Amino acid sequence: MKILLIGANGTIGSAVDRELSQRHEIIRIGRTSGDFQVDISDSASIRKLFEQTGKFDALVCAAGNVTFAPLNEMTEESFALGLKDKLMGQVNLLLIGREFANDGASFTFTTGVLSHDPIYSGASAALVNGALDSFVRAAAIELPRGLRVNSISPNVLVEAMGKYAPYFRGFKPVPAADVALAYAKSVEGLQTGQTFHI
Amino acid sequence: MKILLIGANGTIGSAVDRELSQRHEIIRIGRTSGDFQVDISDSASIRKLFEQTGKFDALVCAAGNVTFAPLNEMTEESFALGLKDKLMGQVNLLLIGREFANDGASFTFTTGVLSHDPIYSGASAALVNGALDSFVRAAAIELPRGLRVNSISPNVLVEAMGKYAPYFRGFKPVPAADVALAYAKSVEGLQTGQTFHI
Ligand SMILES: NC(=O)c1ccc[n+]([C@@H]2O[C@H](COP(=O)([O-])OP(=O)(O)OC[C@H]3O[C@@H](n4cnc5c(N)ncnc54)[C@H](OP(=O)(O)O)[C@@H]3O)[C@@H](O)[C@H]2O)c1
Ligand SMILES: NC(=O)c1ccc[n+]([C@@H]2O[C@H](COP(=O)([O-])OP(=O)(O)OC[C@H]3O[C@@H](n4cnc5c(N)ncnc54)[C@H](OP(=O)(O)O)[C@@H]3O)[C@@H](O)[C@H]2O)c1
Repeated sequence: MKILLIGANGTIGSAVDRELSQRHEIIRIGRTSGDFQVDISDSASIRKLFEQTGKFDALVCAAGNVTFAPLNEMTEESFALGLKDKLMGQVNLLLIGREFANDGASFTFTTGVLSHDPIYSGASAALVNGALDSFVRAAAIELPRGLRVNSISPNVLVEAMGKYAPYFRGFKPVPAADVALAYAKSVEGLQTGQTFHI
Repeated sequence: MKILLIGANGTIGSAVDRELSQRHEIIRIGRTSGDFQVDISDSASIRKLFEQTGKFDALVCAAGNVTFAPLNEMTEESFALGLKDKLMGQVNLLLIGREFANDGASFTFTTGVLSHDPIYSGASAALVNGALDSFVRAAAIELPRGLRVNSISPNVLVEAMGKYAPYFRGFKPVPAADVALAYAKSVEGLQTGQTFHI
């Protein structure tokens, strides 16, 4: 398969790369790094990306930004980044990318545990993750040509605990390699409309 | 209790009004009808509303618009209404309304079954409902002064089947009076961070 991997050099993306590159052709994409660049918060940039990559069999997005801030400091503007970047960025990867997707191609998006297991400062992350998990469930039933879409909802990663431990006390972190398996299940299996919790 | 009821003359809102007005003072609010008017998609309009109503003990929102359209006709723009109106409209009712909320006051928002039981043309509704259900779970744990927030996720209503039946074949519609009970549980009970499915 020809797989577009957005966020290929990130904590999650690099583990997905290690898992999938054993069996597939990986096109590595980042905001600043990789074979191609994209800013998922900008739909013109997404369209330009697909014009460069051409048709594909799977798209994996392991990128997406939201604002982490205490709720009492948050205003409408604090939610704008998450809506434009992690949420509509991934929705737009499907809305635009479907034109470039081969029959039977899959879209695999990244959400996260905060949708249902919230932490201090996580209101925007929760909102965005919950939105995407519900979006994939709904979009899947309307996709033509055997196209599929799933989301991966990882717990905090072992590899990210250096930065995130103080925010995630009591969470059992999961190794990136285990998270990468869920992406393989989404890409190489046949399920659609699912959220894989890992 | 002094209860602000947004969408008071709607299908759901009028049933909530009948249930809660038996025991409480209801301030009826609509986009065009009611004691006060607000457009929840406009944060300046929300602030003006609270300046008019003053402090309150409970806010119920039974309003919120999204675009219903087949996924293959949807673009980024098709999602903008839902993000600005039903989603950020209700988030902003909390972000702005908390300044006007008495200690122990509650916010009760409206989502819906499409977050997890999707239909044709329902991708934006699903996304918005899922976003809000996750937002209330996260926001609840950070609210000060005993403030609470829940969402009500109704199935399609018996009273709406005249309009909606073709879209909701196989769904068992629920009477508005039963849905109204969930709003009473949220307002008059003590739970927070919950989504009541009805
Ligand atoms: N780390 C965790 O524990 C964890 C747990 C659950 C969920 N998640 C979610 O998983 C996603 C990735 O997390 P991560 O920790 O792996 O991130 P990371 O290590 O910071 O890597 C982010 C990757 O995404 C790319 N990127 C960032 N913003 C982009 C944009 N606007 N457009 C396109 N590419 C962009 C970066 O590209 P460049 O390097 O080229 O700039 C980089 O490759 C995030 O949405 C995060 O919320 C993470
Ligand atoms: N009906 C159902 O079967 C059902 C099931 C599940 C979920 N829901 C959700 O419940 C909510 C209400 O549905 P409904 O069927 O009761 O609606 P409805 O009968 O159409 O009534 C809508 C109410 O909201 C007000 N409104 C509309 N847009 C507004 C805005 N931008 N700002 C402030 N107020 C606004 C209207 O005010 P004016 O009349 O003054 O203009 C009216 O009072 C919607 O979000 C819907 O998705 C409905």
